[in-house]
This record gives sequence, C-alpha cells and structure tokens, in this order.
Amino acid sequence: MPARGDHEARRRDVSAAVWRVLASRGFDGLTLRAVAAEMGASTGLLTHYFPNKKALLTHALDLADEHTEALARRTPAAPGAAALRAALLDVLPLTEVSAAMNRVWVSSWDGALGDPDLGTRETARYERWRGRLRVHAEAARERGELPADADVDDIVATVAAFTHGLVVQALFDTVRFPPERQIALLDDLLSRYFITPER
Amino acid sequence: MPARGDHEARRRDVSAAVWRVLASRGFDGLTLRAVAAEMGASTGLLTHYFPNKKALLTHALDLADEHTEALARRTPAAPGAAALRAALLDVLPLTEVSAAMNRVWVSSWDGALGDPDLGTRETARYERWRGRLRVHAEAARERGELPADADVDDIVATVAAFTHGLVVQALFDTVRFPPERQIALLDDLLSRYFITPER
Repeated sequence: MPARGDHEARRRDVSAAVWRVLASRGFDGLTLRAVAAEMGASTGLLTHYFPNKKALLTHALDLADEHTEALARRTPAAPGAAALRAALLDVLPLTEVSAAMNRVWVSSWDGALGDPDLGTRETARYERWRGRLRVHAEAARERGELPADADVDDIVATVAAFTHGLVVQALFDTVRFPPERQIALLDDLLSRYFITPER
Repeated sequence: MPARGDHEARRRDVSAAVWRVLASRGFDGLTLRAVAAEMGASTGLLTHYFPNKKALLTHALDLADEHTEALARRTPAAPGAAALRAALLDVLPLTEVSAAMNRVWVSSWDGALGDPDLGTRETARYERWRGRLRVHAEAARERGELPADADVDDIVATVAAFTHGLVVQALFDTVRFPPERQIALLDDLLSRYFITPER
C-alpha cells in the first residue's frame, strides 16, 4: 500500500513549502501560487489540499503554533518570577529564528482581524498564552515575589502587552532595539512589579 | 476649466472609498477590485490612480496617518506625565472609532514586514511617535515626576510597547479588555515609573 505513505510524504512536502513561504514573506505573501512555485508544483495540485485561501491560512496558523512550541526554551528556570522572565524572553525576537517566528505572528493579525473565525482562534490563543504566564505569576506570589494582594491577571496582561509591543518595535527597528536593550527593558519592567526577581 | 475640479472631486471619491474598504476589512481586504466595487466603478479606472498594489497600500497608509492625526485628542492636558498619559489614551482602542483605526494600523504591519519600503516607513513612523512621547517624558523629568537620572528613551520605549501590546490584546478580546480595564492597567504602569502622575 504505497499510496498512503506517498500521501503523507506529499503532505509533509506541502507543509514544508507553506512554512518556507510564510517565514520569508509572511501572511501577506502566502498564496497558493507562491506555495506551488516553492514546490515546483501546479496550483491545481494544491487546491486538493487547500480548497480556498482560508484553508491555507488555517493550516499555516497550525504550522506556526507547532514551530513556536518547538522553539520554546527547554532550559528549566526556577519557578515564579524567573520562570515568567524566561517565558517572556522566549517570545522576544532575540535571535534571527525568533525574529522570523515573530514576523509570522505579527503578520497573522491582519487576516485574524478581518475574519471572525480566525479572530476567535487568536482570542483563544492569547488566553492560553496568558494562562501559561499566570501559572508563573501565581507561583511568584506564593514565593513572596509579588505582594499577597497583587492582581495576577492584571500583571500578566501588562507583561504580555509590554512583550508583544516590544516585539513589534524591535521587528521594525533592529538598530534601536538590539537584544541586550530588549532584555534590559524587560528586566526593568519586571523589577517594578516583582520583588527581587531572580535573574 | 472644469477638468481640474472634476479630477480633484474624483480623487476625493477614490480616497473615501479606499478608506471605507480599509476601515471595514483592513489591509488584508484592500484590493483594487474591492475599492472599485465600493465606488461602483471599474477596476480599470482605479489603475489610473494606482498602477499597482503597492501604490494603493501607500495611499492607504497616507490616509491612515491623516485620520489618526484628526482623531488625536484636542483636549489640552497639563504638561509632563499628564500629557504623556493623554497621548497614550489617544492610542488605546477605548471607542469604536479608535478600535477601527487600530485595526487598520495593526493590519498594516503584515504588508510592512514583507516590503522593505513600507517597513522603512513604519520604522520612521514609530520613531516619530516615540519622539512626540519623549517631549512629554522630558517635561515630566523637568517637573520632578521622574527621577533626575531616569532614562527617558527607555521609559518612552516601555510605555509605547505596553500601549501597542495592549491595543492588540484589546482588539482580539473586548470582553476581557473593556475600556476601564485598559485605562486602569495604563495608570498602574505609569504609577510604577512616574512619581505621583497627575490623573
């Protein structure tokens, strides 16, 4: 039964081509035609996998999720403020690979703002991300790195907002926002919310 | 010489149609075809104004700049921290009009990340925005609302990052980020950098 193996291999080839187009040109440049050209295949073949633009976008978002997860730092950090800092550093565009990933995510907001289904997906994705950060913020509060009455949800929303806003500024201005400045700005922010965060 | 007046009237019609498409569908939905349909005109007529997609994008960015400037709060605030706060409140999506404007800007990042010229334009636009905020932060330092040795550039970059990141979260989640929470998060952030900011 070679057909099944062929199908899966072809599916992987398609996914790899979608990812290469996405990483180099963002969602604005992601078209069936561009993916077909990347594979040296016909647009007709691709319509078999993606009957419309939205199917292609949805698959691309799945791939971006997978790649983002694979990129997440595996180095264990101490729990609490140190783990929160590590999770935020994972998001900042401190390396070329991370900058490429961030360009993909920032460019995805255009389509997500214009499509209710994709927008709902992004809403849920944000809430999952804040949920992962909240675990660290709650641990920080238990460890005495936050005041006992600190509003963990508000602090998480704030550091998430700061981090994504810094991502956008850094993507558009690598000269003014080199990695060391991004890290220094983050550490300064955290020091204003957390008591002696571990560095 | 009626031709000139006709030309200008037609140009205004075209601009108005571009803006309506942009406000309702973002840059992802901005095509010559969509603008033509909005005007009840032919795509051919529009190619007279916009020989290619990039010319259309560039004109749309000019329009977004104009509309953003028109939207800026005219209420004078006290100088220093209060003026900085007012300038940041102008950016947050606290009203439906401001949310629509923010959707336009956030959706513009997709194309700007994929095109060097548009990217350079966005880099300059960010620096102009930080420059306007910097005036207020410097006044705050002179008024003693910041420590004398405060790094004004870093504080401006931080509050700008926080504000844009909050814009994105609020656009995707109006339930969790109603206007009053956005304002409270901003005020809390400012209180951690500025000494008794005026409210």
